[in-house]
Amino acid sequence: MTGEAVEELGFARVDIGRGRRRGHPEAVYCEGKTVAEVVAIAESLIGSGATNVLATRANRETRDALRSAFPGTVVHERARLVVLAPVAGPGVGRVDVVCGRPEDEAVAEEAALVAEAMGSRVVRRYDAPVHDPAVLPGWLREQDAPGVFVVADGTGGALPTLVSGLTDRMVIALPTSAGGELPGRAALLSALNSCSPGVVVVNIDNGYGAGYAAHLINGGGG
Amino acid sequence: MTGEAVEELGFARVDIGRGRRRGHPEAVYCEGKTVAEVVAIAESLIGSGATNVLATRANRETRDALRSAFPGTVVHERARLVVLAPVAGPGVGRVDVVCGRPEDEAVAEEAALVAEAMGSRVVRRYDAPVHDPAVLPGWLREQDAPGVFVVADGTGGALPTLVSGLTDRMVIALPTSAGGELPGRAALLSALNSCSPGVVVVNIDNGYGAGYAAHLINGGGG
Amino acid sequence: MTGEAVEELGFARVDIGRGRRRGHPEAVYCEGKTVAEVVAIAESLIGSGATNVLATRANRETRDALRSAFPGTVVHERARLVVLAPVAGPGVGRVDVVCGRPEDEAVAEEAALVAEAMGSRVVRRYDAPVHDPAVLPGWLREQDAPGVFVVADGTGGALPTLVSGLTDRMVIALPTSAGGELPGRAALLSALNSCSPGVVVVNIDNGYGAGYAAHLINGGGG
Amino acid sequence: MTGEAVEELGFARVDIGRGRRRGHPEAVYCEGKTVAEVVAIAESLIGSGATNVLATRANRETRDALRSAFPGTVVHERARLVVLAPVAGPGVGRVDVVCGRPEDEAVAEEAALVAEAMGSRVVRRYDAPVHDPAVLPGWLREQDAPGVFVVADGTGGALPTLVSGLTDRMVIALPTSAGGELPGRAALLSALNSCSPGVVVVNIDNGYGAGYAAHLINGGGG
Amino acid sequence: MTGEAVEELGFARVDIGRGRRRGHPEAVYCEGKTVAEVVAIAESLIGSGATNVLATRANRETRDALRSAFPGTVVHERARLVVLAPVAGPGVGRVDVVCGRPEDEAVAEEAALVAEAMGSRVVRRYDAPVHDPAVLPGWLREQDAPGVFVVADGTGGALPTLVSGLTDRMVIALPTSAGGELPGRAALLSALNSCSPGVVVVNIDNGYGAGYAAHLINGGGG
Amino acid sequence: MTGEAVEELGFARVDIGRGRRRGHPEAVYCEGKTVAEVVAIAESLIGSGATNVLATRANRETRDALRSAFPGTVVHERARLVVLAPVAGPGVGRVDVVCGRPEDEAVAEEAALVAEAMGSRVVRRYDAPVHDPAVLPGWLREQDAPGVFVVADGTGGALPTLVSGLTDRMVIALPTSAGGELPGRAALLSALNSCSPGVVVVNIDNGYGAGYAAHLINGGGG
Amino acid sequence: MTGEAVEELGFARVDIGRGRRRGHPEAVYCEGKTVAEVVAIAESLIGSGATNVLATRANRETRDALRSAFPGTVVHERARLVVLAPVAGPGVGRVDVVCGRPEDEAVAEEAALVAEAMGSRVVRRYDAPVHDPAVLPGWLREQDAPGVFVVADGTGGALPTLVSGLTDRMVIALPTSAGGELPGRAALLSALNSCSPGVVVVNIDNGYGAGYAAHLINGGGG
Amino acid sequence: MTGEAVEELGFARVDIGRGRRRGHPEAVYCEGKTVAEVVAIAESLIGSGATNVLATRANRETRDALRSAFPGTVVHERARLVVLAPVAGPGVGRVDVVCGRPEDEAVAEEAALVAEAMGSRVVRRYDAPVHDPAVLPGWLREQDAPGVFVVADGTGGALPTLVSGLTDRMVIALPTSAGGELPGRAALLSALNSCSPGVVVVNIDNGYGAGYAAHLINGGGG
Repeated sequence: MTGEAVEELGFARVDIGRGRRRGHPEAVYCEGKTVAEVVAIAESLIGSGATNVLATRANRETRDALRSAFPGTVVHERARLVVLAPVAGPGVGRVDVVCGRPEDEAVAEEAALVAEAMGSRVVRRYDAPVHDPAVLPGWLREQDAPGVFVVADGTGGALPTLVSGLTDRMVIALPTSAGGELPGRAALLSALNSCSPGVVVVNIDNGYGAGYAAHLINGGGG
Repeated sequence: MTGEAVEELGFARVDIGRGRRRGHPEAVYCEGKTVAEVVAIAESLIGSGATNVLATRANRETRDALRSAFPGTVVHERARLVVLAPVAGPGVGRVDVVCGRPEDEAVAEEAALVAEAMGSRVVRRYDAPVHDPAVLPGWLREQDAPGVFVVADGTGGALPTLVSGLTDRMVIALPTSAGGELPGRAALLSALNSCSPGVVVVNIDNGYGAGYAAHLINGGGG
Repeated sequence: MTGEAVEELGFARVDIGRGRRRGHPEAVYCEGKTVAEVVAIAESLIGSGATNVLATRANRETRDALRSAFPGTVVHERARLVVLAPVAGPGVGRVDVVCGRPEDEAVAEEAALVAEAMGSRVVRRYDAPVHDPAVLPGWLREQDAPGVFVVADGTGGALPTLVSGLTDRMVIALPTSAGGELPGRAALLSALNSCSPGVVVVNIDNGYGAGYAAHLINGGGG
Repeated sequence: MTGEAVEELGFARVDIGRGRRRGHPEAVYCEGKTVAEVVAIAESLIGSGATNVLATRANRETRDALRSAFPGTVVHERARLVVLAPVAGPGVGRVDVVCGRPEDEAVAEEAALVAEAMGSRVVRRYDAPVHDPAVLPGWLREQDAPGVFVVADGTGGALPTLVSGLTDRMVIALPTSAGGELPGRAALLSALNSCSPGVVVVNIDNGYGAGYAAHLINGGGG
Repeated sequence: MTGEAVEELGFARVDIGRGRRRGHPEAVYCEGKTVAEVVAIAESLIGSGATNVLATRANRETRDALRSAFPGTVVHERARLVVLAPVAGPGVGRVDVVCGRPEDEAVAEEAALVAEAMGSRVVRRYDAPVHDPAVLPGWLREQDAPGVFVVADGTGGALPTLVSGLTDRMVIALPTSAGGELPGRAALLSALNSCSPGVVVVNIDNGYGAGYAAHLINGGGG
Repeated sequence: MTGEAVEELGFARVDIGRGRRRGHPEAVYCEGKTVAEVVAIAESLIGSGATNVLATRANRETRDALRSAFPGTVVHERARLVVLAPVAGPGVGRVDVVCGRPEDEAVAEEAALVAEAMGSRVVRRYDAPVHDPAVLPGWLREQDAPGVFVVADGTGGALPTLVSGLTDRMVIALPTSAGGELPGRAALLSALNSCSPGVVVVNIDNGYGAGYAAHLINGGGG
Repeated sequence: MTGEAVEELGFARVDIGRGRRRGHPEAVYCEGKTVAEVVAIAESLIGSGATNVLATRANRETRDALRSAFPGTVVHERARLVVLAPVAGPGVGRVDVVCGRPEDEAVAEEAALVAEAMGSRVVRRYDAPVHDPAVLPGWLREQDAPGVFVVADGTGGALPTLVSGLTDRMVIALPTSAGGELPGRAALLSALNSCSPGVVVVNIDNGYGAGYAAHLINGGGG
Repeated sequence: MTGEAVEELGFARVDIGRGRRRGHPEAVYCEGKTVAEVVAIAESLIGSGATNVLATRANRETRDALRSAFPGTVVHERARLVVLAPVAGPGVGRVDVVCGRPEDEAVAEEAALVAEAMGSRVVRRYDAPVHDPAVLPGWLREQDAPGVFVVADGTGGALPTLVSGLTDRMVIALPTSAGGELPGRAALLSALNSCSPGVVVVNIDNGYGAGYAAHLINGGGG
């Protein structure tokens, strides 16, 4: 660990090189950090040349502070996610992010933005006909293509299992807490116990992890 | 409460008239009762003229004892259910009992036999294509008819929600423990949090309650 | 799936025809949706001719916005439910909605309104003598008639089991969270483990599902 | 603590005087102890003059060993309880032990025997009409008298709440595990959340504690 | 059930005679009820001559409204309990209410006030030396007398077990949630699993039930 | 769904073509099925030309029956997995299956065999230095290569997080129940809450799902 | 217990001598106590000559009141901890308090301050490279010395196990709730199931207990 | 990591040097390993000169095999622990292992043997007067001396808290499952929520971890 890759900020050591070593954007998890701490960490990262830096779970105050501090910043209100020093790329491969209820979109969008910032081409499909399974097969076939699925669902959890049963593509189940504690756990348990192989799971509301993994599976890692 | 409707057996009061007052068969829950107790209760009920008496959750020893004690007894090994003094009827209305895995059949069959003994016409459909949701709509339409569904499922729990989404008929979700404790809870939670209205739930492995309720909804009650 | 039955709103696909295909009112679940989203969905549904559209779990702001936007709207404050384009019907069959504590009434009323909007005749009985079981049988007999029960209860959960034991009618147990998390779970578990067959269960506070199922059992489905 | 009240057995110190200081019988909890340990402890207690010594949760081997070792021993197979050096008394006050299913009787009987051995008059009522709440009030009134109730129940748990609602007497709810883990928890939670004051609770299957407390409330303590 | 004992208020049936039939004060549980509903119920009860009417879990607004509406009302802020039409009596028997931390006093006080309003003489001992078990035996002996204990505790739960081990008197364990969810459950589980017989349990924070039961055990019931 | 792809066996519909449509081996989950059922399903699949058919969770009796019935069968005792009509291929890509305790090997091996049967090249590394984190980085670098990790762990769950932190490759966490219920849940929760992105999770002991997903990520799907 | 060591405050007995008997600072747990109560207790303690009195879990209002009331008071905002009548000592032995995320620092700092106030020399190391396990061994060796570790972690919980595996020193795992309820439980379970001996655990967020125990192990007790 | 410290056994890498690097005995956890595997690992360790090798959680078959294979082996049946190549030392410092019920002794003894094998002087005190808290202070003072406590308890969990309140010495709470699942959790939760600082916790039944930590605290580590 060479000195230049680590900058001491007093309250937290920023391991600047880590994202770049992996070839992925840096991410700052904002919950539990003060606005000043987030800004300082972001400055340190951007000052060292990082691009597409993600600030996740950023509350309104933090989002505003970042927008003011860094020109060109893109703020996604609903997903509570900020992209600093954004650099658009062509987008490689394909990640389909799927959900069927407006209340699941915030978490789905976090996954989409993360995969996008990492370099994947992302297709958002937030209008899955969850209440009408008869049309789901046709709806899926409308846009069939190789790639990875992220399926966000906070209800009883049938959607990830269904999508997996209707396709050969990898499915990352992303349970959401939209609907309360019990539904969130139902969605998590349902995905873990899915009768369809090819389903893997991330934690409730972990859009960041889902997007990150989707990008790796999509060819960005390994 | 008149005297003639109650017979004292020493260890348990048998309220003989209850089933008949409701117009439904009597049922003896065998778990936690000795073989001798079950036989004595059954004798009391049959002696008073009851027919289609059900002995549920009967272990092998109890099943054998009942078969020996009462001629004409029908024993269903897999469902661990015995019908004493069986009287076949024409079968009214329609109850579809659905599952898609052999390991869910024992509980499904308990529901089917109970509804049948109560007088419902039961259609068993134990080959639901749970691994191939694309063909499920067609499979359901093959036998579309008014009536009630009992859907037994011990996996992630998508099946009851799916069936409800594909039909206008009432669905009783019957979670099973086939697959372990965690899957059983997943199935229960998933059904309780189903995003499809028209789904009601009974307890894990409660085939008796599912069949009973299905018969009532089917026109046998209220 | 023909084009005219689906209207694209950008953030959510409204499957307009679904309710009508089933012959039931449409419902918009408001939690997790912005006021603007709810209004837009409602406009789309009403614009296509839907009546008795339900907006459930609507907070005060949403309720006010809907009242302003749609003349004739009926708002039920306690149940947080709005009926848009209400069309009264004669009411078929009979659904008894029962509870015994004022704190359970909000959820009970949601069930009652939903069943009513779907076309059932609903009898509200919110004064069950839960603290005096000796008078419960008489209280029930005062209004005995064929039909379905919805029994809302957020205490130890004896009420649904009791009602089922005192009647031959179908009972939908509706556990409520009024009283805290632990009581809600007690009520749910108690209903699931009821020793009285003929009891089915919906999720905690799921008044919508209870009312919907009651209407189906009452003759509105299958 | 004087020396004569304590006898060293090597593997466990027997505090002989404790029961007598309290004026209650000694009890030996047998689970987790070898047969030889139980016999040695019992010998020590009886050798010091104790009477009505209880050996609880005794398996068959321990029960047989105690019967052989101590003449006059009374063994209650179903309750897995042994009374050594039994001394019958007139029985003071009144403890009603109530249940309604044969599978709850083992735990109920443990409570009854403990209260009896401590000196209470015990009335066993194991035929509560749990499936027919309409006749429960009359059934209770048949034997109305001052005293304490122990109500054992392993179903959804309505019985203790019901009994409490129908009487002014103190009710000790005794949840049983007869019916599986989930019902046991339902019974416990239901009793803890009972809407009827005057209900107190002991742990699942803790017949010993229920009987002990009933005797104290009955006038044997305080 | 005669008409004069029941008064219809529209939103809730007040069973006026119930408390008096039992010889105990009436109680109104305020959570989940509006201020107006509580006042109306209280008026109905007091108008019919009830005294020592308890309003439990009353928030500040309700407490103020009751104080204004009913002269002579006694309000206990910390316990969130109001006594309407208070009538002091001599106090019979003895109930010791014990705790050792200021944060447990609110719940302990609810128990004390309830037992007092019902007619018991109550001794408050809120300074148990919980951090110094060596002096606990002496502290208890300072005021040794026949009667019943209510022991409120929201920590690891040792206190009820300790008190029971140091006395022959009946102990009602009253777990409190002061300290967070996990401690509350620890206290509940600890009390349920107490190795000391003579301990019974009420639900977390159920001071009302503890006080009610203590009074019954103290001679006020059965 | 054409007729020739489905063969009716009476007790279960075998959707023969499904595996082949996906290009993957068929799998028969043996738990809850009788030996005769498993053999019949296997015969149906192999008779239709399937190769590398997997029988998972096969108990000893089922394994022996399959070995007798199908020449060339390979039985893996520890993983309770049978490969029928095995056809070895060159193995594409790379899946590293990692664990560090002998008790985790059975589940790890199930994952390895499944990925292998599907066509992946599998590298087994069952000697991870779990007790000596200092040498873990070096141990990992010994065999660094592109591909996917499956990391089986039934302890506190540090291993999947550690491996992910030390590599850029995708990690599938496979919690095992080796060590008891509590450790299994600890491992599952720990993986779900991993602070390292790039970790996805399958259910406890779901070696089949882990191997299947690893193969898909490895290039066998999507 | 002599009179002079106890001062009656009306609402709580302050056992002044306890801390001094143990030779440790007194501590006042502020949650659930009013500001006035905390100040009164503090005055009583300081008036009797106590130094380094700790007020833990103090909210802003309490912190401000204590700062005003007692000159020389040191307030630690983030740890919500106040040291009254602080007396600095040389610091004996060594306690390393370790964490790797800013959101875990508040709880870590509480542990550090407590150990310090008790007399231990504390080394704060809040920049553990949790995302880069490869550099963790080197990072730990930078400051290797005899002593005790407190390791605060609210993620999947790998850190305490890792540190223990890399050192021979005692590790006290301090799970934090920073990250939500589920992560807090994951961290607790993970620590309890650690495969590395030499790890002991305190409750979630119990920085006080961790610091206290660390000081005792460090030579301050026993 | 040099080659001579690691011996490959095919199924598991034995890191021979680890125990010696730490200066502590090696330990082999036997659950989940075959007898042959345990023997092979033991041979490898002893062949390399290790002494006081511990085989923990060894079932009868494994214990017998080890006794046969290694002369001089000491087998502790109740604790299911085997010490291979035992070398007695003088015993340094002092570890008091405390419990009060015979059923907790097996786990307590595991802790005692582990601490002993590591070099600590161990004092076993298995006769704590758990049912008579009044004599506990005196009982503890009988043998007061500096050192560390391990307190095993499977009841409501009061014992570790009590001992900590009565002494200044460090207490390691060792919850046991003797008494069933619920008591085990009660004991764990109770210890985690102990109101007495100076209590740290290990997992349920983790006698090995408790003994190991006690030895480290006793001066054997850090």
